Amino acid sequence: PLGAELNELERANGELEKTVNEYGSLIERYTKLQQQLCQLAAKQQKRLVHLERTLANQRETMRPRNNSPDLRQETRAVLERSRKLLRERVEPLLPSDGGWFVRLFLGTINVRFMDKRTRLSFKREYEQFKQQTAPALVIASVVCLLWTSSRWPSLLLQMFIAYYYSALALRESVLVANGSNIRRWWRLHHYLSLVLAVVVLTWPDGEAYAEFRGEIHFLGLYLSLLQILQARYQMSRLYTLRSLGKAGELDVANTDSPAQLHWGANMSLLLPAILVAHALQAWTAVRAFQVYFKYPRVAQALLGGTITLITCIGNVVTTFRTLREKAVL
Amino acid sequence: PLGAELNELERANGELEKTVNEYGSLIERYTKLQQQLCQLAAKQQKRLVHLERTLANQRETMRPRNNSPDLRQETRAVLERSRKLLRERVEPLLPSDGGWFVRLFLGTINVRFMDKRTRLSFKREYEQFKQQTAPALVIASVVCLLWTSSRWPSLLLQMFIAYYYSALALRESVLVANGSNIRRWWRLHHYLSLVLAVVVLTWPDGEAYAEFRGEIHFLGLYLSLLQILQARYQMSRLYTLRSLGKAGELDVANTDSPAQLHWGANMSLLLPAILVAHALQAWTAVRAFQVYFKYPRVAQALLGGTITLITCIGNVVTTFRTLREKAVL
Ligand SMILES: CC(C)(COP(=O)(O)OP(=O)(O)OC[C@H]1O[C@@H](n2cnc3c(N)ncnc32)[C@H](O)[C@@H]1OP(=O)(O)O)[C@@H](O)C(=O)NCCC(=O)NCCS
Ligand SMILES: CC(C)(COP(=O)(O)OP(=O)(O)OC[C@H]1O[C@@H](n2cnc3c(N)ncnc32)[C@H](O)[C@@H]1OP(=O)(O)O)[C@@H](O)C(=O)NCCC(=O)NCCS
Repeated sequence: PLGAELNELERANGELEKTVNEYGSLIERYTKLQQQLCQLAAKQQKRLVHLERTLANQRETMRPRNNSPDLRQETRAVLERSRKLLRERVEPLLPSDGGWFVRLFLGTINVRFMDKRTRLSFKREYEQFKQQTAPALVIASVVCLLWTSSRWPSLLLQMFIAYYYSALALRESVLVANGSNIRRWWRLHHYLSLVLAVVVLTWPDGEAYAEFRGEIHFLGLYLSLLQILQARYQMSRLYTLRSLGKAGELDVANTDSPAQLHWGANMSLLLPAILVAHALQAWTAVRAFQVYFKYPRVAQALLGGTITLITCIGNVVTTFRTLREKAVL
Repeated sequence: PLGAELNELERANGELEKTVNEYGSLIERYTKLQQQLCQLAAKQQKRLVHLERTLANQRETMRPRNNSPDLRQETRAVLERSRKLLRERVEPLLPSDGGWFVRLFLGTINVRFMDKRTRLSFKREYEQFKQQTAPALVIASVVCLLWTSSRWPSLLLQMFIAYYYSALALRESVLVANGSNIRRWWRLHHYLSLVLAVVVLTWPDGEAYAEFRGEIHFLGLYLSLLQILQARYQMSRLYTLRSLGKAGELDVANTDSPAQLHWGANMSLLLPAILVAHALQAWTAVRAFQVYFKYPRVAQALLGGTITLITCIGNVVTTFRTLREKAVL
């Protein structure tokens, strides 16, 4: 039996070695082709810019010369087609470093996924992350609301929130590099929340803090509960898109009718809850300003209020825009 | 001229489309082959474990049966060879998620580079990041030492340090996933430094803080200066390795003689500076404990002291181990 096992092992080694070699040559071809594609795309980009300038110049100088209107129209059509090819088929294949936030933490690293399966599972993991964190945040907020004799629970919670929003922002950068349509505001919103957590973290213990503690943790509690609803909505949305076979392409235009299918029972609960959140945010901002006027030496109150106010305004505007685009309003 | 430009554009579009298609089919083959390799490796791993158990059983039961000693010796040789194949040629090709710290921030994402060029440039960027951050830390520490009337400079500095060590730890995880030999201690050291920064960040303003502020910023100042020396050493080390054509493989055994070539003039300055850093760390830990005994309600003093002490011990032990391995001692 030992002899047989040994032979089997040697056979498998041979197979492994063969596969490794094949793999190696494939990688080599792959990196070469990628470089080639980068160069082709850059060159084409230049051509497009040049052609556009030519067109614009001709219009300005009113000298369409011997170019017929037909030719100029055709040119515009080809230009459009070329841009579309670059944007929709070439760019998604080029490496991407995920923008400044990823670069800040990781340096230059390619965060573009090669296949749709990976993209989709990354998005699902992102939603799961939010869904699983929310209950922990709910519990922690309740603890902070009740256990007021020590500054520690709140410190630990704010640290966790700071980590949480960094992680969200990093993952969203990766999602966007892979064609997600997340609006820029939601990402900005998460950067602001990160800053807010750090500001509250540095808020010195004292009378001002005692007065504002309740508000901030109540808002946190409410937002975490809302998060659970939102995550559930996003998950069912993801599920709908996937069963429509479109979620593989995270870059589905969300004004498409299929994207509205998931706009179901969840939304009638979610939308009022979101509106209440906005009102609560506005209230918290006002309270922070009140505290600041009472204790003008606590800069954190002013900072915290300002950030909360900006967040609130941005949320309202963006939510209503999204709803209008989806033709719900 | 417009007509000619148009033709050129169309030709380039055709070329782009062709390349994109080729790329697509290459990616498909690539992902398939990768999956295949994963499966082969997992199966082989199982076979190895099974064979090892068989060997061990035979030894225990003293029943080598009809297997000659030669056969058993051959088996062990083949076993060794198979393990080496898996470890050195197969595993570096399989995807890796970079361990718990990367997963915490980014979720599941493959951080293994495909080619040596990328690996090397990532390492270089990591060293540059340290080299470029150090002067900023020096200046910030000096500001904190001088500007004692406000808690803000120190707060901002500690936030920056917390970000800095998170970024270092993330990048080091990526480096290790790509075969770097960084000792586990240095990575742990950076996690501890992250925790220390957060602890000092939450240290309430007051008498205890006023007493300890000087020590912590002086240590920070010294360590940032040391960082500049260290980064310069590491850069010249990287350069030496690269010109030896070995740095591409970050997994070079560092006990090899080439790795000792870079052990030059830099080191005679670096080593004493490192020893002074260790002494300074020990002193800072002691001071923190003194402050804690004077103000026992400030838990940050105890925590900070403990972390600094652990860091110091680990640094001393690891530095001396490294030196012994390099046969400098
Ligand atoms: C209004 C709302 C329900 C619409 O959700 P939606 O149907 O997914 O919106 P869109 O169709 O514009 O989604 C486009 C993309 O952005 C993502 N997205 C939408 N809202 C998001 C949010 N708040 N955070 C992160 N991602 C979000 C979607 O997942 C989708 O990603 P994809 O392209 O990768 O599939 C959603 O934006 C929302 O929950 N807004 C309220 C947030 C809020 O104000 N909270 C209270 C204060 S914290
Ligand atoms: C002693 C020392 C100079 C040796 O450096 P070295 O020659 O690079 O050490 P090794 O040969 O063991 O290096 C192995 C790997 O670890 C890396 N490495 C070594 N020390 C490191 C450190 N302190 N931080 C991060 N990475 C380190 C090397 O870059 C190398 O990486 P690679 O495999 O990707 O090429 C270095 O470890 C050092 O500076 N130690 C002192 C740190 C210290 O105690 N500072 C004071 C308190 S902060």
